[in-house]
Amino acid sequence: MTLKCFSDQLMTNLGKSGLRVSNIGFGTWVTFGGQVTEEVAEELLTVAYDRGINFFDTAEVYSGGKAEVVLGKILKKKQWRRSSYIISTKIYWGGKAETEKGLSRKHILEGIQASLSRLQLEYVDIVFANKADSHVPMEEIVRAMTFVINQGWAMYWGTSRWSTMEIMEAYSVARQFNLIPPVAEQAEYHYFQREKVELQMPEMYHKIGVGTITWSPLACGILTGKYDDGIPIYSRAALKGYNWLRERILSEEGRRQQAKLRDIAVIADQLGCSLAQLAIAWCVRNENISQVLLGASTVEQLCEDIQALQFVPKLTSEVLEHLETILETNPRPVSPAGSVKRAFSW
Amino acid sequence: MTLKCFSDQLMTNLGKSGLRVSNIGFGTWVTFGGQVTEEVAEELLTVAYDRGINFFDTAEVYSGGKAEVVLGKILKKKQWRRSSYIISTKIYWGGKAETEKGLSRKHILEGIQASLSRLQLEYVDIVFANKADSHVPMEEIVRAMTFVINQGWAMYWGTSRWSTMEIMEAYSVARQFNLIPPVAEQAEYHYFQREKVELQMPEMYHKIGVGTITWSPLACGILTGKYDDGIPIYSRAALKGYNWLRERILSEEGRRQQAKLRDIAVIADQLGCSLAQLAIAWCVRNENISQVLLGASTVEQLCEDIQALQFVPKLTSEVLEHLETILETNPRPVSPAGSVKRAFSW
Amino acid sequence: MTLKCFSDQLMTNLGKSGLRVSNIGFGTWVTFGGQVTEEVAEELLTVAYDRGINFFDTAEVYSGGKAEVVLGKILKKKQWRRSSYIISTKIYWGGKAETEKGLSRKHILEGIQASLSRLQLEYVDIVFANKADSHVPMEEIVRAMTFVINQGWAMYWGTSRWSTMEIMEAYSVARQFNLIPPVAEQAEYHYFQREKVELQMPEMYHKIGVGTITWSPLACGILTGKYDDGIPIYSRAALKGYNWLRERILSEEGRRQQAKLRDIAVIADQLGCSLAQLAIAWCVRNENISQVLLGASTVEQLCEDIQALQFVPKLTSEVLEHLETILETNPRPVSPAGSVKRAFSW
Amino acid sequence: MTLKCFSDQLMTNLGKSGLRVSNIGFGTWVTFGGQVTEEVAEELLTVAYDRGINFFDTAEVYSGGKAEVVLGKILKKKQWRRSSYIISTKIYWGGKAETEKGLSRKHILEGIQASLSRLQLEYVDIVFANKADSHVPMEEIVRAMTFVINQGWAMYWGTSRWSTMEIMEAYSVARQFNLIPPVAEQAEYHYFQREKVELQMPEMYHKIGVGTITWSPLACGILTGKYDDGIPIYSRAALKGYNWLRERILSEEGRRQQAKLRDIAVIADQLGCSLAQLAIAWCVRNENISQVLLGASTVEQLCEDIQALQFVPKLTSEVLEHLETILETNPRPVSPAGSVKRAFSW
Repeated sequence: MTLKCFSDQLMTNLGKSGLRVSNIGFGTWVTFGGQVTEEVAEELLTVAYDRGINFFDTAEVYSGGKAEVVLGKILKKKQWRRSSYIISTKIYWGGKAETEKGLSRKHILEGIQASLSRLQLEYVDIVFANKADSHVPMEEIVRAMTFVINQGWAMYWGTSRWSTMEIMEAYSVARQFNLIPPVAEQAEYHYFQREKVELQMPEMYHKIGVGTITWSPLACGILTGKYDDGIPIYSRAALKGYNWLRERILSEEGRRQQAKLRDIAVIADQLGCSLAQLAIAWCVRNENISQVLLGASTVEQLCEDIQALQFVPKLTSEVLEHLETILETNPRPVSPAGSVKRAFSW
Repeated sequence: MTLKCFSDQLMTNLGKSGLRVSNIGFGTWVTFGGQVTEEVAEELLTVAYDRGINFFDTAEVYSGGKAEVVLGKILKKKQWRRSSYIISTKIYWGGKAETEKGLSRKHILEGIQASLSRLQLEYVDIVFANKADSHVPMEEIVRAMTFVINQGWAMYWGTSRWSTMEIMEAYSVARQFNLIPPVAEQAEYHYFQREKVELQMPEMYHKIGVGTITWSPLACGILTGKYDDGIPIYSRAALKGYNWLRERILSEEGRRQQAKLRDIAVIADQLGCSLAQLAIAWCVRNENISQVLLGASTVEQLCEDIQALQFVPKLTSEVLEHLETILETNPRPVSPAGSVKRAFSW
Repeated sequence: MTLKCFSDQLMTNLGKSGLRVSNIGFGTWVTFGGQVTEEVAEELLTVAYDRGINFFDTAEVYSGGKAEVVLGKILKKKQWRRSSYIISTKIYWGGKAETEKGLSRKHILEGIQASLSRLQLEYVDIVFANKADSHVPMEEIVRAMTFVINQGWAMYWGTSRWSTMEIMEAYSVARQFNLIPPVAEQAEYHYFQREKVELQMPEMYHKIGVGTITWSPLACGILTGKYDDGIPIYSRAALKGYNWLRERILSEEGRRQQAKLRDIAVIADQLGCSLAQLAIAWCVRNENISQVLLGASTVEQLCEDIQALQFVPKLTSEVLEHLETILETNPRPVSPAGSVKRAFSW
Repeated sequence: MTLKCFSDQLMTNLGKSGLRVSNIGFGTWVTFGGQVTEEVAEELLTVAYDRGINFFDTAEVYSGGKAEVVLGKILKKKQWRRSSYIISTKIYWGGKAETEKGLSRKHILEGIQASLSRLQLEYVDIVFANKADSHVPMEEIVRAMTFVINQGWAMYWGTSRWSTMEIMEAYSVARQFNLIPPVAEQAEYHYFQREKVELQMPEMYHKIGVGTITWSPLACGILTGKYDDGIPIYSRAALKGYNWLRERILSEEGRRQQAKLRDIAVIADQLGCSLAQLAIAWCVRNENISQVLLGASTVEQLCEDIQALQFVPKLTSEVLEHLETILETNPRPVSPAGSVKRAFSW
């Protein structure tokens, strides 16, 4: 159980930056400071670290700051070398006051300092802007992020759930004013949410070096098949404030997805893995992605999820094509189908 | 017939540039140097100018350069004040030789000079890159366009059929090297081709000031309903080299569109306008658009098309919603339908 | 004989610039204004152009300016479209006066204008600095080249026989002061001169986009085998001022090379081509090269040389390896053979 | 024994920087924290300092960090004025974790801080990148080094074992983004490893001011002649992990070098110095070098080595030429031996 799963081959650079990250990262959303006790949180982080995961992701908003507090306590207790792991946090929602939200310079600076204080760290490795903020000039955002880095409070900065256009604008402003451009975008990615990561982010990478970290490989647990018979009371979808998730599961579209998962379960059986492992391996196999973020509320679940790495090599082109015929979610570049003008030539 | 249709209200700035353009522009594609005689071309241009259209669009590739020659002759003959109208041309396909195509500095510089010579003008107002060229570094393209402007050969430059990412990259390079960014993109826009103009270009406008000029409001005549019973022999779709248009019209999707047009014809009747006028008015009513480019092969058609302006105020929200229910082409922002994470709040 | 040899596959971008050049270029060194009459020069240029060569190279120093005069006369007479071909010239030695040599701003500006006057052209496509000039600050050189381009006297600039360090310095200065960097280096390349082109220029291309044009694929005729029995009186080595070439041919090293060529002749025979054709095909097959410059003093020779293109596909890895065993000139990256320190690890 | 060997004439600027360094520097590789006890280390450092050596070189990787610990302890104990000496360390290999190696911003920042902690210093004078890292963008490296300097953790930065092209790229990026360029390169230099230092680094110095610090003047002891009869058990080549050194000594090339050293021993005898002293003096006599780094495991050896300075004036041109005839390692600028084109002139 303490076998190290990550060889050097399972490390990649985050985008075109020099930062080496494990193919799988461990996220604290919902769980730390919330769903799980501090004891379980410590167990989870320890297993993740021992297995070779070197990237722990949190956010100021997770459990109202408690996720950072719990993470910080564990890191302090474990005394792992600070240089042996990567911490990322995200800034956007930091409190109830009007000035404690968004990407104003005030909130970016105050937010990251509050996060560092909760984490009991001198710096995080990456600070993400947790959402774009159209009410703040891009120049203000990029200047604030550059300030944070120049203060030594973060090594790199990134974006989360930004459009490629917004990322490009940040890059453009960074180049114009000799500021520091972002290195990575956090984007949702799983069987039923593919377009941005598969079609748009590769262009970002090639043009400006911005890499992709993906989250929700299991679509909040939907892809494990556990909602096939409804909403189990122990599940996240049964939590307060997760009405939207329940609704989504029970929607017509949600039911259709459950049906597809039943077909995919056959493939998983043939490969000898679980639905969850197949879903994770399917994300990791995408070479345009620097890292897949995982969450877990039990050690068993985390171990199962990490073992998904062993199934990546089994995802042959035949298996992948079979999956596509079931999923029918393969995004295609916008075809000029409706276009009335073709290429000219002499 | 010489009634001026364009009040100042029907003039807008091209993007965030200072250039004032009429809501409707007159394009020479297919017609000038091709479908119509020089006499008809002169009549068309005169009517357009007299009605208040101040923008004439051409390209080096139109009729193999003859469109520019014809346009130039007419302008010379009419002796309108050069300062009273706007000429735009487009560069990409300039000849058979390998060096006479694309957006290399060589072709941009030689192409625009050849265009000016054919047009008998000292400068055009806007030079457009008629297509993106991924084989040329963006820095080379933006430097060449800046050179063209600094030589006095053009006042502004723009793009045509570029992706928003490519436009953003051009802007970024312009800012990084203190070069001149583009002011407008020419994009196809009509009932059946909406996504780029409605969803993406407004962001371009707000972020970097790039405006939108649209073309093909009638989808090469399809939206006039004239192809409802097949391909009339006098029509563009009957021309040599327009196989793709015929095929499109006769395709299953093409037939479906004809069916929708029959429903839309009822609305046009109620408004007292033609299908063509409704299609044009529908484009002009979009406030994110700086200008709608029109083509015409007869004076009657042009007059009919220009009169579409009078129906713009009649496109109430009820009428527009009715149209949407028929069209079913309303593009929506990539909805977070599949997304599992919502906005947080404290 | 007028068969077009160049398909689009035989066109490549010059470095990472957008300029499309034919794989083979035609150079005027020694021949134009010197070895051959104007009639032969015209024949040669016509054959080259008709076969699809779109690149003609000259220099202010060739035959004391006469090469440019002859080239200019022919271009004027033939009336080919200026946009269908590429002219490059080189500046360094422009006259006897102290101020007429080197890469001072004065000589670059005066030199290119004198070249344009001799060529009867308004601009060349590329102006090369024919040698590095350590007595002129790099900033002065790059500013002067940028001025030449901004005047419209050239489209691009490049270097000839510069060290990679000098090219890198030019690039660095261009980036520091927002000037225009060079696009290509002209370098000697043949069986017996390989290191710079094979080891150093690929790094230049990848780091800063500078491409390679090579010259002397036949090492001034040595690789044709014609000097195997001494110096024929009709040959270049018999010309006045070519002592150094005679000496080189007759040297011990020269004799050793002749011996190798006898072995290579066997391979040429097997492929069904001449020694010259094999030598040229061997250059063209190097994918790190944008273009191979050829010279010729007779139409027969030129046709033979151009036909070398047909043998490029026959240079399989087996043939190339066989050649290497004969040549023994394969340059290797400087091995740390003598190094006493190896990589550390923890 | 406390005679000061270093007059002002034996101080030079490091590259074109303002930092004044002694001609000979004292390095801690292999010895500190490894081969020698802390007592001997203190003696060595004291002798070096007393004789006028003002430069002490170490690296995070030397003896797994212990070299820095030992050096730091001695400096603390001796209480020499911090301003009277120069400390340099090197960053690249800082630990076993994937994130503790290479030149990512994370490792540069964490690495230098860990070094400072081991050294018990607030700053080093120079931080070197111990190897180039092609997996990290040059912009990230130069930004990180600039940050380190702006934090006050180092005064200058330099490179170690980088190619001149890589150094030039660092300089170019520094100029483009207004960051701080490197001041010196550490390169191996001795009788049998000369090309980079003699041919390439002078150009670096003249073009961009980067100076040269050389190491291994005795080629890990080979040049002392002590391996002439095999591998003495007390020698470095007998240490665990130095297989490569043993192999090199016993190789055919190694044997040839020993033979040359026997001839050189005759010259050393004539000058009245040891083989080691001659080898060191020969390095110091090279005016393109800012400093020669020496290591030593005994005080006797160190004193002998320092005394080499007295023999520098005795290395007349006759002696140097005699050495060359024995060594046959004099690198020449890539001669245009194979070149077919010479300088033109009018």
